[in-house]
Amino acid sequence: MCLMKKIVVVGGGAAGASAASRAKRLDPSSEVILVEKSDMITHAPCGIPYYIEKLVNERNDLVTYTAEQFEKERGIKVYLNSEVIDIDVDKRSIEILKNGSREKITWDRLILAMGAEPSKPPVPGTDLDGVLTIHHPAEADYLRKKIEDMRIVAVIGGGYIGIELAEALHQIGKKVLLFELMDQLLPTSLDKDMASIVAEYMRSKGIELYLSEGLREIIGRGRVEKLITEKGEYAVDGVFLATGVKPNNSLAKKIGLKLGVAGAVEVNEYMETNIPNIYAAGDLVEKYHKILKKKVWIPLAPAANKEGLVAGANAVKGRFLRFPGVVGTAVTKFFDLYIARTGISEREASENNIKVESRVIKVRTKAHYYPGGAEANIKILVESGSGRILGAQAIGRDPVVASYIDIMAIVIERGMSIEDLFFSDLGYMPATAPVWHPLVVAARVMSKGVL
Amino acid sequence: MCLMKKIVVVGGGAAGASAASRAKRLDPSSEVILVEKSDMITHAPCGIPYYIEKLVNERNDLVTYTAEQFEKERGIKVYLNSEVIDIDVDKRSIEILKNGSREKITWDRLILAMGAEPSKPPVPGTDLDGVLTIHHPAEADYLRKKIEDMRIVAVIGGGYIGIELAEALHQIGKKVLLFELMDQLLPTSLDKDMASIVAEYMRSKGIELYLSEGLREIIGRGRVEKLITEKGEYAVDGVFLATGVKPNNSLAKKIGLKLGVAGAVEVNEYMETNIPNIYAAGDLVEKYHKILKKKVWIPLAPAANKEGLVAGANAVKGRFLRFPGVVGTAVTKFFDLYIARTGISEREASENNIKVESRVIKVRTKAHYYPGGAEANIKILVESGSGRILGAQAIGRDPVVASYIDIMAIVIERGMSIEDLFFSDLGYMPATAPVWHPLVVAARVMSKGVL
Repeated sequence: MCLMKKIVVVGGGAAGASAASRAKRLDPSSEVILVEKSDMITHAPCGIPYYIEKLVNERNDLVTYTAEQFEKERGIKVYLNSEVIDIDVDKRSIEILKNGSREKITWDRLILAMGAEPSKPPVPGTDLDGVLTIHHPAEADYLRKKIEDMRIVAVIGGGYIGIELAEALHQIGKKVLLFELMDQLLPTSLDKDMASIVAEYMRSKGIELYLSEGLREIIGRGRVEKLITEKGEYAVDGVFLATGVKPNNSLAKKIGLKLGVAGAVEVNEYMETNIPNIYAAGDLVEKYHKILKKKVWIPLAPAANKEGLVAGANAVKGRFLRFPGVVGTAVTKFFDLYIARTGISEREASENNIKVESRVIKVRTKAHYYPGGAEANIKILVESGSGRILGAQAIGRDPVVASYIDIMAIVIERGMSIEDLFFSDLGYMPATAPVWHPLVVAARVMSKGVL
Repeated sequence: MCLMKKIVVVGGGAAGASAASRAKRLDPSSEVILVEKSDMITHAPCGIPYYIEKLVNERNDLVTYTAEQFEKERGIKVYLNSEVIDIDVDKRSIEILKNGSREKITWDRLILAMGAEPSKPPVPGTDLDGVLTIHHPAEADYLRKKIEDMRIVAVIGGGYIGIELAEALHQIGKKVLLFELMDQLLPTSLDKDMASIVAEYMRSKGIELYLSEGLREIIGRGRVEKLITEKGEYAVDGVFLATGVKPNNSLAKKIGLKLGVAGAVEVNEYMETNIPNIYAAGDLVEKYHKILKKKVWIPLAPAANKEGLVAGANAVKGRFLRFPGVVGTAVTKFFDLYIARTGISEREASENNIKVESRVIKVRTKAHYYPGGAEANIKILVESGSGRILGAQAIGRDPVVASYIDIMAIVIERGMSIEDLFFSDLGYMPATAPVWHPLVVAARVMSKGVL
């Protein structure tokens, strides 16, 4: 007997599109349906700041595949502009709202990938005209149009999105004010000593940076006119809220899915939820952190894609693949300054009672005599006593610093020590690295005279 | 009782300079003497092609430290222009020839780091005027002057030095003919399918490439006039011999040091030779290959530096550090085409009876919508059955391919599988990588439908 399975995937972003594709590929006899609220799938929200900056010119460039390609080339039925308004766990069905009419779709396996949504600060005025968030490429044209006539724009929040937006708005001629509640940029990502390099560069670009300054209120008659913070008042024409995101978990909550860290859906390594036949993946779910050895919520696209792939595979093949977790790698860029990190930061170490030693080490990215190298700062965190490397941060005006962190992601995940890193066989040629590779130099410094 | 140790290091290149520095640093009470044949130390032979190309303009840029700096800042006595002509093992002394006069220097520990020297092909005419080799930065000005009036230059050998020279000579306006005995460029490094990408690019630059064409004779009256190969005759004004190098082992042989692969000095992981109190390091010695699990001879600067450091440390501290070996990482560049490899090639696998599967995978280095990405080719070799990754090669017009190979050097050294690589936490941002990192894509392709 061969029963055709019906797989319904909710959410057409990284995780959902990967899940649908993988399920159909591994079991071509299955019926796979992808339901998406907006008018596009496989969208790349990380590209929105570049669209605002006009570095990317076509909104459609922010999608990898169209719904037509998914239907024709992959045999996946796509429901666009379709919001899921209810899930019936017992009857195994979802109810969607599409162009004002309701429709029920049954499923044998349901994969939830509704992602995350902007988390607005709890202050008055966030609903005024001119207050914007970055969420979905479907809104990219709306955003471009909205900011057209703004002269002075405030960005609230100095995380990844905040600093990428600050660059984009500055590049298209806006006066930019960035407000961050904490006393440093990228507070969940970098240590303060490293973040101060970014802050200094931001100020050198003419962006007004206000640290340790929380937003109290946005004021305007219909439209944004000014900001009130803990420390002052600022006349602005527009406000971007980049104060973080939260799991889009309302449906999950409603049907009784167990939630964990930060309200993200709890899943095991097979991406199974606590309800049989319901899987979840992507920014909606918790991830296992291999260094902290506990669940965390880090909503980033590479893990979302892989979790989607695992969920899709397991939905048709049972427990076929496992998602082993993350080590906390993240990369961003501010103008030509590349910023990357992996493993744990000093703050994470201290919150988890892990004793670490660390140093910021200045290196050059190419041989001293070869043209075009840049200075870079590398910070390495080592577990006291064991010498095991637990974290790394790198900043510099050369994209290679992102690669340093990719190397360190493997080094950290594999439990390597300072001595292991020092003796690793990293390549050398004058145009790509000095003969003492910057990470080898960093290992040497961290060895405190042993190497 | 505290006896001052006297450490003599022969050879002021990467290994020797590292050894001397490390010995003095770890035991400041020791007397450290560095003996160098030429007039410079810490020289960077890898930079010579860039000096010829005039990308690097000062010969002194090719040294990292001067002898004065070593003496004043590090307290190391440097003998320049000093050739070691004899070693007395029983009396623990060396005899040097400096400016025509001989001198004996005694030692408690001797570290040999005489490096490698060009290996000339056994054909008539290699002593003619206009036949050149790349060996030591001390000769860089001589080379620049020698080639000034040449119009047509043949490069014999398509290894790293050969292709870097071909670029350099082409860039300063010479007509360049490159002859390689084997049927591919970089035969000891890349597989033929990958090497053919380099060959195609070389031809597109207007360099005449002759594969499978061995040199038979160089002809000229006093000065080079033409080449005779297995297939034809070519009128040329100059010839660069880039037919490989060999360990500079004549002194080692003379004093009875045990030689191994390719005539390189045999050392253990402490860099000890078979004669007590004599250490050796750098291009002069064999290296342990962690994947092949046997000794090889791969003369490259990063290992030389680390071996020197280990030898220097152990010379003053006993068995203080170990050099664990290499995995075969190497990087080069041909114009803007970056070429890198690590682990083993198909040829090495076959010579060592290792069964592998491999694929060449085309990737893009940045998000499809982000400007400036390049196409790259990645080849991954996986052990049949186990799925363990044993080798990787990458070529592309983006320096990030060198970093791909650095990542793979760690992946391979740590015995990771295709699935481990796929699930590793490599970073993503549009400006540095696509959301599916090129190495993750490669792992996926190699999984043959599992991932």
